[in-house]
Amino acid sequence: MRIGELSAASGVPLPTVKYYLRENLLPAGERTARNQADYSPEHLARLRLVRALVEVGGLSVADTRRVLEAADNPGLPLDDVLGEAHQAVTNRPTPSRPEPSWSGARDLVRQTAQARGWRVEGETPALDRAADAAAAVLSMDVPELIPLLDVYAEAAEGLAEREVAAVMSMGEQADIVRGVVVGTVLGEELLSALRLLAQRSVTLKLLVPDAEDASEPGADAA
Amino acid sequence: MRIGELSAASGVPLPTVKYYLRENLLPAGERTARNQADYSPEHLARLRLVRALVEVGGLSVADTRRVLEAADNPGLPLDDVLGEAHQAVTNRPTPSRPEPSWSGARDLVRQTAQARGWRVEGETPALDRAADAAAAVLSMDVPELIPLLDVYAEAAEGLAEREVAAVMSMGEQADIVRGVVVGTVLGEELLSALRLLAQRSVTLKLLVPDAEDASEPGADAA
Repeated sequence: MRIGELSAASGVPLPTVKYYLRENLLPAGERTARNQADYSPEHLARLRLVRALVEVGGLSVADTRRVLEAADNPGLPLDDVLGEAHQAVTNRPTPSRPEPSWSGARDLVRQTAQARGWRVEGETPALDRAADAAAAVLSMDVPELIPLLDVYAEAAEGLAEREVAAVMSMGEQADIVRGVVVGTVLGEELLSALRLLAQRSVTLKLLVPDAEDASEPGADAA
Repeated sequence: MRIGELSAASGVPLPTVKYYLRENLLPAGERTARNQADYSPEHLARLRLVRALVEVGGLSVADTRRVLEAADNPGLPLDDVLGEAHQAVTNRPTPSRPEPSWSGARDLVRQTAQARGWRVEGETPALDRAADAAAAVLSMDVPELIPLLDVYAEAAEGLAEREVAAVMSMGEQADIVRGVVVGTVLGEELLSALRLLAQRSVTLKLLVPDAEDASEPGADAA
């Protein structure tokens, strides 16, 4: 297909497609005439992946390129692909980390994880990022929120088991690699949005219980 | 305390404290001399909250100001404070939303939520954001990942119930409001980081099962 058809099929505006081509996130099409190139279904699949990582996942172009290079390297162990995807998702300016409270928070997160039997490596950006959030919670006077750390850990564990099983069921190595990248980045977005939606629902039911009947037949008087 | 003590106690660098003062995220101290002001423990608590929202939660200064204004308004219903916090957390450039696939994804998310008995309002940024991620997953050839939508929804529901209960247990209205803000923004960071940590652990156990014994006594030969 031509570049205009690639744009139409993906829903990505033509200037953005050209930008991804210039940035080498999307490989060049096959040249068919002086000013014309042909794009395959593989280009379309790649374009959708790039769009998802950049626009929906919010990754920078540099992080997207790093993740895709890892995914494209057939010799790279799966664990390293996951590591690159995690690096990209957690890549943001490092907040100030006042000591000793930050190290204390990091130890607390590590202990919570190890108490659940997780294998925690020394150098993991996710551990530092969890410590940033835990240290901030601990620095404020909100003791009621501290037990949520283990609630989140329990939920995260259940999710990770289901997520890894789903990705591993994809069979072919190339598909698994794509599943790791897509699942890491888009799963984060999906979970985060659904958590807010659920919070909103629980809060509404608690604060505005009267409206509960609004969805029942005949009660829709508004 | 003086501004230098405020900086030291919070771990926030002095220029950043001054920036927050200029941006009205932190109220001015009480003037005690021509070039000197006194800051109270309330200033310190506020500074920690601002730091958490900006540095750890990654909110913009404008979004932080909006959330704090909502939290500072004693007449504002709790539900509206939650709405502002959600707006701030979900505030990012809107990705392209190719139709009809995007509306289809939005319907799927809404149905998933409603099948669980959630109350879903028409205009919710979280619903649109979930639709962005779901549409991206659906646009790619990864059918194995689609069942995760309900897995995430189930986890999100369990979390939201525990989170709202924890915040509501804070008793005083002002504390609850702070709990909503802190819990929404930092809870997202914590859950996200713990999910990555759990994914890493599950993947390591699957791919490198030999190392499982490394944490047992006597096997620590490295």
